[in-house]
Amino acid sequence: MAATKIEYVMQLVQKQVSQNLLTVGTRVPSVRQYAQQLNCSVSTVVEAYARLVSLGVLESRIGAGYFVCRPSTASGLLAERGIEYSREVDPLWISRQSLDAPEEMLKPGCGWLPKEWMPEQAIRKALKAVAKSKSSLLLDYSIPHGHVDLRRYVARKREAYDVELNLNQILVSDSSTQSIDLIFRHLLKAEDTVIIDDPCYFNFRALIKAHGLNFIAVPFTKNGPDAALFKQALQYQPKLYLTNSGIHNPTGTALSMQTAYEIAKLAEKNGLYIIEDEIFTDFEYAPAPRYLTLLGLKQVIQIGSFTKTLSAAIRCGYIIAQEEMIDQLIDLNIATHFNSSHLNAEIIYQALMDSSYLRHIEWLKKQLHKSMIETVKKLAILNIHPVLLPKAGIFLWCRLPNQIDAIQLSQRCLAKGIILAPGNSFSQSENAGQFIRFNVAQCTDKKVFDVLTEVLEELKMRDAV
Amino acid sequence: MAATKIEYVMQLVQKQVSQNLLTVGTRVPSVRQYAQQLNCSVSTVVEAYARLVSLGVLESRIGAGYFVCRPSTASGLLAERGIEYSREVDPLWISRQSLDAPEEMLKPGCGWLPKEWMPEQAIRKALKAVAKSKSSLLLDYSIPHGHVDLRRYVARKREAYDVELNLNQILVSDSSTQSIDLIFRHLLKAEDTVIIDDPCYFNFRALIKAHGLNFIAVPFTKNGPDAALFKQALQYQPKLYLTNSGIHNPTGTALSMQTAYEIAKLAEKNGLYIIEDEIFTDFEYAPAPRYLTLLGLKQVIQIGSFTKTLSAAIRCGYIIAQEEMIDQLIDLNIATHFNSSHLNAEIIYQALMDSSYLRHIEWLKKQLHKSMIETVKKLAILNIHPVLLPKAGIFLWCRLPNQIDAIQLSQRCLAKGIILAPGNSFSQSENAGQFIRFNVAQCTDKKVFDVLTEVLEELKMRDAV
Repeated sequence: MAATKIEYVMQLVQKQVSQNLLTVGTRVPSVRQYAQQLNCSVSTVVEAYARLVSLGVLESRIGAGYFVCRPSTASGLLAERGIEYSREVDPLWISRQSLDAPEEMLKPGCGWLPKEWMPEQAIRKALKAVAKSKSSLLLDYSIPHGHVDLRRYVARKREAYDVELNLNQILVSDSSTQSIDLIFRHLLKAEDTVIIDDPCYFNFRALIKAHGLNFIAVPFTKNGPDAALFKQALQYQPKLYLTNSGIHNPTGTALSMQTAYEIAKLAEKNGLYIIEDEIFTDFEYAPAPRYLTLLGLKQVIQIGSFTKTLSAAIRCGYIIAQEEMIDQLIDLNIATHFNSSHLNAEIIYQALMDSSYLRHIEWLKKQLHKSMIETVKKLAILNIHPVLLPKAGIFLWCRLPNQIDAIQLSQRCLAKGIILAPGNSFSQSENAGQFIRFNVAQCTDKKVFDVLTEVLEELKMRDAV
Repeated sequence: MAATKIEYVMQLVQKQVSQNLLTVGTRVPSVRQYAQQLNCSVSTVVEAYARLVSLGVLESRIGAGYFVCRPSTASGLLAERGIEYSREVDPLWISRQSLDAPEEMLKPGCGWLPKEWMPEQAIRKALKAVAKSKSSLLLDYSIPHGHVDLRRYVARKREAYDVELNLNQILVSDSSTQSIDLIFRHLLKAEDTVIIDDPCYFNFRALIKAHGLNFIAVPFTKNGPDAALFKQALQYQPKLYLTNSGIHNPTGTALSMQTAYEIAKLAEKNGLYIIEDEIFTDFEYAPAPRYLTLLGLKQVIQIGSFTKTLSAAIRCGYIIAQEEMIDQLIDLNIATHFNSSHLNAEIIYQALMDSSYLRHIEWLKKQLHKSMIETVKKLAILNIHPVLLPKAGIFLWCRLPNQIDAIQLSQRCLAKGIILAPGNSFSQSENAGQFIRFNVAQCTDKKVFDVLTEVLEELKMRDAV
């Protein structure tokens, strides 16, 4: 029974109802009649009618057939609206634009891979396996700590940088963002101060705003945070430092061992918590230093998810922290979420265990490397240059030509179907007005550079006038 | 290739590694050798080795075979711990106990249906369909408002009580709890006052605590909240009133039209927001009055999910509010969650559209009615009586025999494998020490009543001494 056939029959009935050709209380043709009339199978009509009953368009009266049960004047209202682009550029600008964008828009500004780069077959295979798995996985709540095997996997992965965990030190959450949100709620209150990088992932800023926190943005150098300025920031008694480990967003920087050591000592001396966001860890060729290795769980909390390498549609993340803290985070998670999605955790685990996954990651890294080199070359022609060439990952943090403002560029490109990521979205001090973050995996379409060329010309012309 | 065979091979290798029969750097038998040795297929060993590579137990060196890549001393630590039952009885007691409970425990205290009562086939069918759906559903982020067809379904359902919505007035979230959490964050700040019912769903209390709010608990009568006391509560300038619509948790009460009218007038006059939690709406025979019908979206926000009738493992909820509020809630959702699970929304939608779903709901209602009658009879023998006989739903709110304390009863029953829901978990004023909430769907096992009989005898004996 083709899904499209059922939908066709549904639309036919709905159309007649909305055009008042079938009014409330009218009996619709019997299943058999209608199947004959439309030259389709009886089961197609049965299924279409059943769905129309679920949608409240028809009702079934036993022994009498199906009847139209309500006028459909609202159906016009139930259409989707267009997207408005008037919004000010704020920390959420990029997220909202990228998430709301129609599929045909190009998104060099977004933070994820194109779906053609994701391990689609492994996900489909995982879904099929899960469809046959034991019923408790499909129907029951998860235990509070979350999926056992997935926690075991997360623990094993930490052994790569000499960290041994037990399973009660891991909580399965819904996403990295939710993980940070839970930790903030647990450790901080409004008006507390945190340290972030300048620039940093824009959503960190949105989270800080949502919690009413104060913050100090410490400049991020090509080795990590500026240790001298980090030390100065400590006089404001910050409670924690939030950063990306492995590959820094937006700059693509890998933390150097010297800087990791300096920052770790400062954090230890001042009892400062560090949240390490492992979101890009799977793209690393060799692991950069981790604060967790140096400081352990007493001061470091790690978070991560599978969004970047598996699927953004299947929300699943994790938190690594001391056992007591995990226990308290669980209480908070139940109070504010009740439970994480057990099904998502199982699908993710199945996909991770698929023999194709490791091969896929290797392929991805090669693809990213190739795209990075190509994107750097194409941008150089436009006099746009990365501040540094990242060792790995998906981002290039680039300086625009003189006199070009990133927000003006982004707004003009948006009108031509290209979503960019202007620098000041990432910079709390707003001193990145001449910077843009490019996602190299989203820069493979020639149109990106054609539009950039065109808009840069326009902006230069205007200045010349 | 049986999943169990692959796991068998994996365990065999892991065991040898943990017993140091295979040490770090040792080459394991080739795939072909090992398959011959174990008398299984080559593909089974290939898959097992690949998974062990994913888990970091083995590494593959091209042309040379598979090698043990790390000692497995941590594997002991990676075992699961037992559950501790020492926790104080607080608002989260029931949740933590019920979620942590091993499968063999009986849970008349929990708030969900046994998995045998859930539409397992519809979920499996939905999963299979989703495994074949278009790739953007499996891999991409959702648009910020969430799944379009699911929002359309939610809108249609509201027509049953004369509410017309457009799709921008609906946000797909991860759960009812998360929905309330988002709304609290948007509308309230710490120290603000809210009105709740006494008794009410215990997690409302946990949420209020997590937000640092003040609250007034208004006694819930058999018609709804006590209108006179509700009016008195308004002098404390509460910002909102949080309640269950349709079927009240824990009492099973349906709001009367008179009370709905009184409360609506008070809310309107005082600009009080009402959050209506629709969680049990699908169990209703005829819809009870809704504040949304009387007051509209200017003052009422509805939330709901599909946890109770479809699956608790597939987290998916929704918020219905004014368009501007939804837009602001989306910003907050992105900042604190980034996105809801698109996959979960699609699975839920597919299951709702399955022709078996409506039949299943009808079956469920009949089953619940039957179980309710039986549970009432069995409890009556123990001199435990419901305060009222609910028209529908899963809960009975019962008074215990004189001198029996609900917490003592619950703790003793817990030791005998039965999780109960003591009244004071639901009562902010803690005047429900002699009440218990029973989930009739979880009371079909004779053991529930045997243990209750036994423990009640013990408690009476002790008092007699």
